[in-house]
Amino acid sequence: MFEFEDYYKIDMDESHKAEAYSALKEELDGGEVGYYLLPEDISLVANIESYILEKNLASDRIENVVILGIGGSSLGTKAIDRLLEYSTKRDENAIRRRNNKNLIFLENVDPNEIEESLKGVRVDNSVFIVISKSGGTIETTSSFKFLLKRFGLTFDDEVFQNSFIIITDKNSPLDQFANDFNLKVFHLPTNVGGRFSVLSAVGLLPLALVGYDIGEILAGAKELKESFFAKKEDMLIKKAYYYAINREKTPINVLFSYSSAFKFFNEWFVQLWAESLGKINRDGEHVGLTPVGLIGSIDQHSFLQLIIEGPKDKNVTMIKVKNFDNDLMIPDITLPHLEKTDFINNHTFNELINAQCDATMQSILDQDIGLDRIVIDRLTEKSVGYLILYFELLTSLTGYFLNLNTYDQPGVELGKKILQERFSK
Amino acid sequence: MFEFEDYYKIDMDESHKAEAYSALKEELDGGEVGYYLLPEDISLVANIESYILEKNLASDRIENVVILGIGGSSLGTKAIDRLLEYSTKRDENAIRRRNNKNLIFLENVDPNEIEESLKGVRVDNSVFIVISKSGGTIETTSSFKFLLKRFGLTFDDEVFQNSFIIITDKNSPLDQFANDFNLKVFHLPTNVGGRFSVLSAVGLLPLALVGYDIGEILAGAKELKESFFAKKEDMLIKKAYYYAINREKTPINVLFSYSSAFKFFNEWFVQLWAESLGKINRDGEHVGLTPVGLIGSIDQHSFLQLIIEGPKDKNVTMIKVKNFDNDLMIPDITLPHLEKTDFINNHTFNELINAQCDATMQSILDQDIGLDRIVIDRLTEKSVGYLILYFELLTSLTGYFLNLNTYDQPGVELGKKILQERFSK
Repeated sequence: MFEFEDYYKIDMDESHKAEAYSALKEELDGGEVGYYLLPEDISLVANIESYILEKNLASDRIENVVILGIGGSSLGTKAIDRLLEYSTKRDENAIRRRNNKNLIFLENVDPNEIEESLKGVRVDNSVFIVISKSGGTIETTSSFKFLLKRFGLTFDDEVFQNSFIIITDKNSPLDQFANDFNLKVFHLPTNVGGRFSVLSAVGLLPLALVGYDIGEILAGAKELKESFFAKKEDMLIKKAYYYAINREKTPINVLFSYSSAFKFFNEWFVQLWAESLGKINRDGEHVGLTPVGLIGSIDQHSFLQLIIEGPKDKNVTMIKVKNFDNDLMIPDITLPHLEKTDFINNHTFNELINAQCDATMQSILDQDIGLDRIVIDRLTEKSVGYLILYFELLTSLTGYFLNLNTYDQPGVELGKKILQERFSK
Repeated sequence: MFEFEDYYKIDMDESHKAEAYSALKEELDGGEVGYYLLPEDISLVANIESYILEKNLASDRIENVVILGIGGSSLGTKAIDRLLEYSTKRDENAIRRRNNKNLIFLENVDPNEIEESLKGVRVDNSVFIVISKSGGTIETTSSFKFLLKRFGLTFDDEVFQNSFIIITDKNSPLDQFANDFNLKVFHLPTNVGGRFSVLSAVGLLPLALVGYDIGEILAGAKELKESFFAKKEDMLIKKAYYYAINREKTPINVLFSYSSAFKFFNEWFVQLWAESLGKINRDGEHVGLTPVGLIGSIDQHSFLQLIIEGPKDKNVTMIKVKNFDNDLMIPDITLPHLEKTDFINNHTFNELINAQCDATMQSILDQDIGLDRIVIDRLTEKSVGYLILYFELLTSLTGYFLNLNTYDQPGVELGKKILQERFSK
């Protein structure tokens, strides 16, 4: 399913490796970090699937799945949908295919975007999922209130109660609201932070609604989880260690993904990495690694120049998808005067984009820049589940080596307080 | 139209300022840097508009404007369209409104994306614009060949000659091809690089086709150009100088734009900044500043944590749009148990997003992080033209202070060579 290549050389004591395995095992056993348990939550898959059946939400009546959520409540779902939508739509023989329901995200409070997003959305052709871990996210509650008004719904309205689903922490204010008015609730385990929540109901419910095999997504994550806790993932530990010890020399980590399908996956990674690792650590130091997400080949015409000739302050991880399952070809046509482009004729676009990935990798390695590459056989529910957990574990490990709390986000609270004060005057 | 605020303090000799004005004036007068002249090219506007009339390309028959181009040939157009589309679509009384034609970009060579992008695209309902400065960009020529095959077109075909428009350098191989087969060509001035080309035909032709007032875009740019060369833009010079002298202390420049409309503008900026300034400079040093584009409020739930608590290696520029011309409101609804979110009731989303921008700015300033802010009255053709030139001039000035050639990109050539060698074996 995967090949992992790394081209940096580091020496690492066996004892350091053992300690890293132990540290994450302690987090798992101690129960403070809940995302490790998500890949095994088969009962959640069953609950989601039976709820969809019971309420007939797979029916063609539902044209839109509208997510009210921001940050960790939306990025992971967007990422997985974009990774899988092309491939599963194209596969006529697949048991599960992405259906044609629109996934619509009310994330930002940009009024023009809200208006544009809601075109064609009605209560009778849509299901709405309100996602907020704490329950009080101002963007999400504001959009929620706006929809209530727009559709003229009251809390006791059956239409309201049947169209809105809540995902939140148990006993959060939003949970209590949902209980008062008989809304369906899926709980987020309290020990799972927003940015680590895509394999919980936060991601699985909307992904199931648009037709993906969410059991397979978990199965992929579970495969890596088991292998990791069986201490068979030394490369992952080495990579985290490499990032941590080079945090001052190379504080910028570039994820260079060769397929447009990774657009939102890159954004999900950026959130996970920036918000988990940008911290005052236990030694009182301001630490953190700046993530940058790039798409190949597009960004060969942009950011690559900075990587190659700029300061040597970056590491690069490349992602290559071997099989796009698509045989579109560059035809054997010679454009007079442009004969020098003929070298690619009679090759597939799949071959071209992969050859570009290889060539760019070579040109970066020639500059002695730290690089590793993840080669994925094909994008499937299973491989995507594996990939998600790969980056989550990498984040936990890097946070461990940086000696910080990977799972909190104290730096973003001040702005919220200032906001509230402004309106309370 | 604009307010510029800066919150960093620097001392700068008057002589340094004068030298910077002179340096850019020399570039203008010497004729090596052509983008300074674009805002005044009124004859291009007339040519584009009369060509659209002559060929009746504004008609409803044309449903799709398909751009074949990558990097500098696509990002600027995408950026401006996204900045303006909501506002000009909503304004019922505007003289010009964005029409309903789809702008479709064939950028990447991801085969699944190509297939998805071309759904519903036929020769008889579309116009195709092939954009390549050098003429030989492999992504663009490959897509071009693919379309020829897909639609069964031959070079002598009138349908082909009437549906495809070329934008390239004079005498490039693509220009020669176009001349052989009577294709309409718009030339890019040879002294205008791809990433500085959005105010040339590269951006103006597609933007005119979807209905924007391209004369106004140029007028906005011209206003700043004249003011700059009249030596009235000291703040811009101070900002570039500040970035350059702090290049080692704060090598990361964050653009934090408070509206979803800036999504592609951020990407345009990232290309402009990374590819222009990531260089081996004239003193033989690897210099460069890493750009990061963020969208507020979304990235308050992501990257902001890293800015606030991470290493002090960043400067931030915020962008705020005062008027979204949209009065969508957060209604006066109390969600039981969520009363603490009521402080925002009866305010517009426009007020909320702007208050979030203010609050985030305050929380960043509290950390003593270098920050400036651009406040735009509203997004119009004119203000967007001004903003484009603002960042282009800032790039030229920063490149001047970093003592490098802002306009070349030698670092991306090696990968192209390796790619070609792979297929020539």
